[in-house]
Amino acid sequence: MSDRLLNVGIAGLGRMGRRHAEQLAWRTRGAQLVAACSPLEEERAWARGHLGAAALYDDFDALLRDPQVQAVAIVTPTTLHAAQTIAALEAGKHVFVEKPLALDVAGCERVVAAARAHPDRIVMVGFVRRFDPHYLEARALIDAGRIGRPFLIRSQTCDKNDPDGFFVRFAPTSGGIFMDCSVHDIDVARWMLGNPKAQRVFASGTIALHGGLADCGDVDNGLAIVEFEGGARAQFYASRTQAHGNDISTEVIGTAGSVGIGDGARRDRVQSRDAEGVHHRVLADFIERFDDAFGRELAAFVAACRGEAPLPLTLADATEATRIGVAITRSLHSGLVETV
Amino acid sequence: MSDRLLNVGIAGLGRMGRRHAEQLAWRTRGAQLVAACSPLEEERAWARGHLGAAALYDDFDALLRDPQVQAVAIVTPTTLHAAQTIAALEAGKHVFVEKPLALDVAGCERVVAAARAHPDRIVMVGFVRRFDPHYLEARALIDAGRIGRPFLIRSQTCDKNDPDGFFVRFAPTSGGIFMDCSVHDIDVARWMLGNPKAQRVFASGTIALHGGLADCGDVDNGLAIVEFEGGARAQFYASRTQAHGNDISTEVIGTAGSVGIGDGARRDRVQSRDAEGVHHRVLADFIERFDDAFGRELAAFVAACRGEAPLPLTLADATEATRIGVAITRSLHSGLVETV
Amino acid sequence: MSDRLLNVGIAGLGRMGRRHAEQLAWRTRGAQLVAACSPLEEERAWARGHLGAAALYDDFDALLRDPQVQAVAIVTPTTLHAAQTIAALEAGKHVFVEKPLALDVAGCERVVAAARAHPDRIVMVGFVRRFDPHYLEARALIDAGRIGRPFLIRSQTCDKNDPDGFFVRFAPTSGGIFMDCSVHDIDVARWMLGNPKAQRVFASGTIALHGGLADCGDVDNGLAIVEFEGGARAQFYASRTQAHGNDISTEVIGTAGSVGIGDGARRDRVQSRDAEGVHHRVLADFIERFDDAFGRELAAFVAACRGEAPLPLTLADATEATRIGVAITRSLHSGLVETV
Amino acid sequence: MSDRLLNVGIAGLGRMGRRHAEQLAWRTRGAQLVAACSPLEEERAWARGHLGAAALYDDFDALLRDPQVQAVAIVTPTTLHAAQTIAALEAGKHVFVEKPLALDVAGCERVVAAARAHPDRIVMVGFVRRFDPHYLEARALIDAGRIGRPFLIRSQTCDKNDPDGFFVRFAPTSGGIFMDCSVHDIDVARWMLGNPKAQRVFASGTIALHGGLADCGDVDNGLAIVEFEGGARAQFYASRTQAHGNDISTEVIGTAGSVGIGDGARRDRVQSRDAEGVHHRVLADFIERFDDAFGRELAAFVAACRGEAPLPLTLADATEATRIGVAITRSLHSGLVETV
Repeated sequence: MSDRLLNVGIAGLGRMGRRHAEQLAWRTRGAQLVAACSPLEEERAWARGHLGAAALYDDFDALLRDPQVQAVAIVTPTTLHAAQTIAALEAGKHVFVEKPLALDVAGCERVVAAARAHPDRIVMVGFVRRFDPHYLEARALIDAGRIGRPFLIRSQTCDKNDPDGFFVRFAPTSGGIFMDCSVHDIDVARWMLGNPKAQRVFASGTIALHGGLADCGDVDNGLAIVEFEGGARAQFYASRTQAHGNDISTEVIGTAGSVGIGDGARRDRVQSRDAEGVHHRVLADFIERFDDAFGRELAAFVAACRGEAPLPLTLADATEATRIGVAITRSLHSGLVETV
Repeated sequence: MSDRLLNVGIAGLGRMGRRHAEQLAWRTRGAQLVAACSPLEEERAWARGHLGAAALYDDFDALLRDPQVQAVAIVTPTTLHAAQTIAALEAGKHVFVEKPLALDVAGCERVVAAARAHPDRIVMVGFVRRFDPHYLEARALIDAGRIGRPFLIRSQTCDKNDPDGFFVRFAPTSGGIFMDCSVHDIDVARWMLGNPKAQRVFASGTIALHGGLADCGDVDNGLAIVEFEGGARAQFYASRTQAHGNDISTEVIGTAGSVGIGDGARRDRVQSRDAEGVHHRVLADFIERFDDAFGRELAAFVAACRGEAPLPLTLADATEATRIGVAITRSLHSGLVETV
Repeated sequence: MSDRLLNVGIAGLGRMGRRHAEQLAWRTRGAQLVAACSPLEEERAWARGHLGAAALYDDFDALLRDPQVQAVAIVTPTTLHAAQTIAALEAGKHVFVEKPLALDVAGCERVVAAARAHPDRIVMVGFVRRFDPHYLEARALIDAGRIGRPFLIRSQTCDKNDPDGFFVRFAPTSGGIFMDCSVHDIDVARWMLGNPKAQRVFASGTIALHGGLADCGDVDNGLAIVEFEGGARAQFYASRTQAHGNDISTEVIGTAGSVGIGDGARRDRVQSRDAEGVHHRVLADFIERFDDAFGRELAAFVAACRGEAPLPLTLADATEATRIGVAITRSLHSGLVETV
Repeated sequence: MSDRLLNVGIAGLGRMGRRHAEQLAWRTRGAQLVAACSPLEEERAWARGHLGAAALYDDFDALLRDPQVQAVAIVTPTTLHAAQTIAALEAGKHVFVEKPLALDVAGCERVVAAARAHPDRIVMVGFVRRFDPHYLEARALIDAGRIGRPFLIRSQTCDKNDPDGFFVRFAPTSGGIFMDCSVHDIDVARWMLGNPKAQRVFASGTIALHGGLADCGDVDNGLAIVEFEGGARAQFYASRTQAHGNDISTEVIGTAGSVGIGDGARRDRVQSRDAEGVHHRVLADFIERFDDAFGRELAAFVAACRGEAPLPLTLADATEATRIGVAITRSLHSGLVETV
């Protein structure tokens, strides 16, 4: 139905990678998945069973050398994001890379420089909330003036507790709870407030359940306040230990009203009632929550690669999110107010 | 703080009677409770312990002979309502009487005749929803034109299941589920629709849990449809068997919008979350639901007796509610459409 | 990624037909859309622009003669459903046909006979709620015993008012509001209650806004009660005139609890607040509401045609839905209780 | 109905004072209002019209000299609370005093010393949420172990914006937004967490609408984080500028669940629907929100004075609330983390 499909290769076939791979293989107009790459035989075996004719590689450089690959989706550990993005650009590929772009500002800036050197290549960081219909509806209400001037964001990213503590093992390379979870809230705050410059931050946290996090200075519940130039403020809450499920919500408060996204975390349109009262279930995780948005995100990336539509977010946005996240993490460790 | 308090006597000290007695004794401006009457020693004992100096009688006629009693509140079994109201009027008392006024139209009409013979006496039937702030707010929205022309009412009166089936023993004199429960919905429907004349009704029901009701032709879950002159319609649901609690709600649908009262039956402002999801508790019974409205209802009665404000409902309203309720009950028994 | 794709042709490219066509073209695993048929040049023009290489026909018989078509999706006016389904079966095709199967029981029975004569062909009627995750979750709760024995269904299908009254012009062939809208609620009631036999029905209705419906005996707001063998009951409400949007909900009441599907009709996870209070938007129409379910429905049809999974509903279900819908419509016209 | 009524005098007849006066005059069992005091003729005129036979004074000392006054309710500006409480104790009265007890810890400690010198006198500070049925229900759930170990409080006190900015004129003596509003949240946090010791705080704020606050270093929107010994944390939000109404809510997060109080700020059980969507109204102010709790609070004070029940909160609680509030306010001014 379109003249030429964009040939995409994917790197990383963990849980998120598999979701993106299936999306690109079957549900993204204008694209086809032609290659996949993972160092793990188990993940490549999954690809052989589920992704049909896609070429499989155990090495990222091999993927980049595949001449039919026009664009790569990088869904690898965060510590690899910046270097792989730069390598892909240098190999002439468009790049979709999961958030955060890098765990330090220098890493982001190297990507920015590489992108500037390849101005005809698309680089997009996966801040999925920018593609979520609920967040977009909120933004439309704000743009329509319905809440006056927005000056305060309160936003939370709270995961259902995983008794196995998978993320504890993952903690040393995740960048900590604020880089891993709140980076979305940080990006949303900048987006909703009109990209003000952050000045100072303060963070505090506690370990409620997962003592193993202490080894790398991380917490399982964290609070942060950000002060922006011009008076706007943001307040973040990140948690790994919610009993009821995944609970992501944002409130944008303005001078004439406010708008909330996600309150209630209700999984579906079902309500049950019994002698204990009235009950509803809650979303299991962020993949269930943003299922639709992940599809729209990749569709936007493909459309940008095909020259059909501009990207709604920039590498500068990703850099600022890292800059603020790094300062918040520094404050968590120092116990002091930190400048951004 | 006011010149003369209205001296009130109460007849009937069951659960509802005790609530009214306490309201009149301590929380109704302009009134004082001076006498109470019950044929049951147990109820009079409660009064001695809780109502202070009020005179106590075991006989309704004795209460009427008490010269200091200016007004009586009749909270006795429904089968006594009409005759006691007439006797009180003839004794020169103002009368507050619980709903329904009578289980047949003839009984209502005898009260209407007696009231006409004593035009300086107040008679008020306890349709408590007319005094509930939530129903009043809905009515105000309708009066303000917010829903256009109302043409359809859907209303339910659903009780929490009582495993002991107290109401089963009470069934032979209650008039059945529609006279006992739906009579409130009937009155609300007329009130919200502007008092149209009911023409035809159909009812159906089932016994879900309380087989003992079959003996007196009653059901524990009943449905009814009412057709009004001019095209308006009403749909009622009455239940004795809700697991989750007392669930009373009404929806008024108009040509330009609708208004709902009571959806959710939420008991309080508390929500709990755990691994099973999100939970809230539900109202236990109609007394909890209408606690505030019962106070306002008696305050309105006292104010009317003292000549301070007119009553917001008439004996004709009570008569029409009985007329419709009787026709619905007839339809339940006949299985046919009945004219009102 | 599968060996052979099922080749599907579609008949009817109105709003619903286009949605199904796009679903089959791009988003249904195991199928491809190879042909489409419409008597209207405007609809074929849309297909040329949107459906790529699919063969186009202006005549249903021509579609059936296309040898590469293995299955047809019939999304034509209801009055054609039965005859086209039979013709397709006789041409050796699998059939997906939109609900209702026919406007009379005889029509349904002719389809049943034709299906019996072609036992290797799949015939599936589009009762989409059987594929909706919310209804399926409710059914799972019931199957798990969470509400005890279900004995009462209350279900509504309410459309947002269309000031242009498109459906008024459509009314003469729609079968009336109960056949067009409530047939879904009827099917859900049977499904949730375990397929009891309906015995008697009563219906009533009113015209709130669309006077033109009087010509064909239809109404824009209708109420019905259904009595089932064994004591179960159902209550339906259908409306064409809701101001706020599409509001489809069902409540299943059992002896130990109840489950509600769809309460609130909330469109998304956004809530806005201003000086007027708190606000949320509502679903626009049933296509928005059941977007996901429509995809799952066609996926189930394709899977059945490919022999991968049995169908979750039968032609007998579709016949019973029509039988009850016809009786309700007869009651609306007669004003009397009708036997099913 | 009881042997001896407690004779209460009230000081201060502003909006809150009038509410307490009416409560004591007519709706508090076991008490009667015998005297009132205000320096403003306008307030005394109101008392003459509404409080009947109560003696009126223009001077607090005169009230204390009235021998029939057994207890005083102090509803005067915050800056007077401590000195008046001490004077009343020395005059032999029981004291109910509005929150906060004092704007500095030294003031609180002087009251504590005076109370210790008069151990037979009751002193109670008006932390009304301790008497609110919703907060009490939440506390009961926590006590029952329903959320595991509570370790995080998020609590907000948000007022509807007053375009006249009354509170701006009141700001110089209110102690600032945290002492005036968040002191309730502080007390709730300590109560729900089991009275841990606060160690460090950080606060930030902004002026969204009321520029006049800058003169006294106050803000109209403030955020704060409190670190408690043992790892518990609290996060507060206070606002003077909400468009939609009064929005007070608290969330208590534990290791096995969480409980929310007040989410939604819904005023009543009414929901309206129109072409714009679904709407509900919001509470107007804290007096509407806590109407019931204010009554229970005074009832608890009276019961304590009459020796019927112990107080559920202590002067030490009030002192700690001031100590934390003072530290938060210091952080707002310094921009630094402050120790408590």
